[in-house]
Amino acid sequence: MTNSTPPLSSSIADIKALIGREARRVTSYDVARLAGVSQSAVSRCFKPGASVSKATQARVMKAAQELDYIPNAAARSLITRRSNQVALIVSNLATLHFPEVLSELSRQFGQRGMRILLFALPSEGDVDQTLADVWQHQVDGAIVAARLSPAQVAEFERRGVPFVLFNRHLSGHSVNTIVCDQVEAARLIVSRLAAAGHKRFAMIDGPHDSAIAQERTRSVAARLAELGLAAPLLVAGNYDYASGARGMREVVSRLGRAPDAIVCGNDVMAIGCLDTARHEMQLDVPGALSITGFDGVTQAGWLSYNLTTLRQPMQSMAMAASDMLGALMLDKSTGPERRVFSASVVEGATARLGPAF
Amino acid sequence: MTNSTPPLSSSIADIKALIGREARRVTSYDVARLAGVSQSAVSRCFKPGASVSKATQARVMKAAQELDYIPNAAARSLITRRSNQVALIVSNLATLHFPEVLSELSRQFGQRGMRILLFALPSEGDVDQTLADVWQHQVDGAIVAARLSPAQVAEFERRGVPFVLFNRHLSGHSVNTIVCDQVEAARLIVSRLAAAGHKRFAMIDGPHDSAIAQERTRSVAARLAELGLAAPLLVAGNYDYASGARGMREVVSRLGRAPDAIVCGNDVMAIGCLDTARHEMQLDVPGALSITGFDGVTQAGWLSYNLTTLRQPMQSMAMAASDMLGALMLDKSTGPERRVFSASVVEGATARLGPAF
Repeated sequence: MTNSTPPLSSSIADIKALIGREARRVTSYDVARLAGVSQSAVSRCFKPGASVSKATQARVMKAAQELDYIPNAAARSLITRRSNQVALIVSNLATLHFPEVLSELSRQFGQRGMRILLFALPSEGDVDQTLADVWQHQVDGAIVAARLSPAQVAEFERRGVPFVLFNRHLSGHSVNTIVCDQVEAARLIVSRLAAAGHKRFAMIDGPHDSAIAQERTRSVAARLAELGLAAPLLVAGNYDYASGARGMREVVSRLGRAPDAIVCGNDVMAIGCLDTARHEMQLDVPGALSITGFDGVTQAGWLSYNLTTLRQPMQSMAMAASDMLGALMLDKSTGPERRVFSASVVEGATARLGPAF
Repeated sequence: MTNSTPPLSSSIADIKALIGREARRVTSYDVARLAGVSQSAVSRCFKPGASVSKATQARVMKAAQELDYIPNAAARSLITRRSNQVALIVSNLATLHFPEVLSELSRQFGQRGMRILLFALPSEGDVDQTLADVWQHQVDGAIVAARLSPAQVAEFERRGVPFVLFNRHLSGHSVNTIVCDQVEAARLIVSRLAAAGHKRFAMIDGPHDSAIAQERTRSVAARLAELGLAAPLLVAGNYDYASGARGMREVVSRLGRAPDAIVCGNDVMAIGCLDTARHEMQLDVPGALSITGFDGVTQAGWLSYNLTTLRQPMQSMAMAASDMLGALMLDKSTGPERRVFSASVVEGATARLGPAF
């Protein structure tokens, strides 16, 4: 480890000076030197169940204490094969309910003595490169809020790394999943808008590489078709405020007037759409036009907006994800499970809603 | 490692079956069995500069490839003494600009091949217990967005873990710090409000255990005193929307009328204060009352608010923090540095401001 190895059983001062010169942490080699035993003896002392004499154990523990040596997590992970780290793989850190989810996951895993190692993807599609890095860190499990291919799922399974898909859906594969039912949510809001007499719909949708955004968009269109209403005018958004504002302008410019209702792919776009309708176009919302969101983020409840939206029970979903992964990490043979949560309608002040039917 | 150790040089099928039965990852012991060498020979093959014969090296590499063995990060960290992980220690995940900061830090460290390990504190004061956990994970460095005591700073130094204080200030100690000048920011907004003729001030302050919140409050009061104006009416807030709304009601109830200006300790409270003033009390903002925030979060710029506030250059600060920590991790002898960023006034539509002086 060093060029000039001091003799065994050096003095504490010598060893501390050496550590200082080399600007490094106390290692098992330092403890071995102070205790006058081999490094492997020190190692055995910190290995559960390993054979070591009482006298050696006592000398090593005394030396470890004097040097303030802690067998590090990396070293322990080689012994226990646990890093006590969970990878959180997310495609979009900027999502407004992300802090809420992260906070809950951090709290839940913290109670299990585990920490979250963060892997933020440059974009939803960029998973392969990130996974190579995940394997390097030997995490005990993963929460994946990004789209996985069947090959990537197989790679998790082959490596024996338990994982839970969070609010992502993988059709045709049985994987452990926590999800909010986007189809049901879309049906719910469209039905209630239709029940209030809205006929001409527009939709500002989310990013094309987001599976959830596309599921919401498809489900809105499908429900309108079921109800015998015209297909919605679709304009592209990317989940941010500015794209909601642009979307509102595009809808009006393409239709030549406002539609009866605009369903937005998330709350932030709905807020941008609403601000533009009210403050730029002086439209009466919900008198002349209904606007709805998706997600139920905190900001949607602020008095200036009081947005009519669909709330995903994010905190419960985060808790369920950590419970599910926790169980998987203890017993890998648990079969795949899908826990499907339901969104609820938040009856705000930006849409006229009829009764549920 | 196992009860029934197969003989050296087992077949690939035997070894894969064993790994499957034990539901574990491929280890250096498996590679050793397949290559017919000792585990320590495998270990030496993956250790830079270690002595190993060409023939052994070739056998081990072939076996490693056949078993798809990757020397794990934990094992490498024992050799290189690097975990390629940076601790992010934060007291408040719910802060609205946290996603922006986290996103930038994740991107910056990602470019250095490093990942963020998250340590969220239950409260600003709860650092000691968290630090014990940080040491266990043997991170290469830390970004600390929480208050440290001098003893805790000394502990980082003693352990040789480089760290950067992020938007926290430690008086009387030279530590590497990225900070936004809260005193200057408070002076700036008070001066410009005073220049527009505001005389009676109130302030909704932040949590009492937040050093930044207290620095903002003290600085507002100090600048008012300098200008010969009355001390502000102080009401307690806790950085959230509801406490801004409550604060507005408390100010009016204690004064019997609205003051000229309410300076809020952050943007979210200012938004709550503003919504309550306008929608609950029908007050004209900024005609009858000016309201200002602190931070410059995205939401403050939404059309319904267009908040007059102070913007902290969070992205630049996050970039500076990762640059600084990156440099420290390469050369620990760099002396302590404090990089102080300035907030700028966002001239929104919720306050009457005079010229800067």
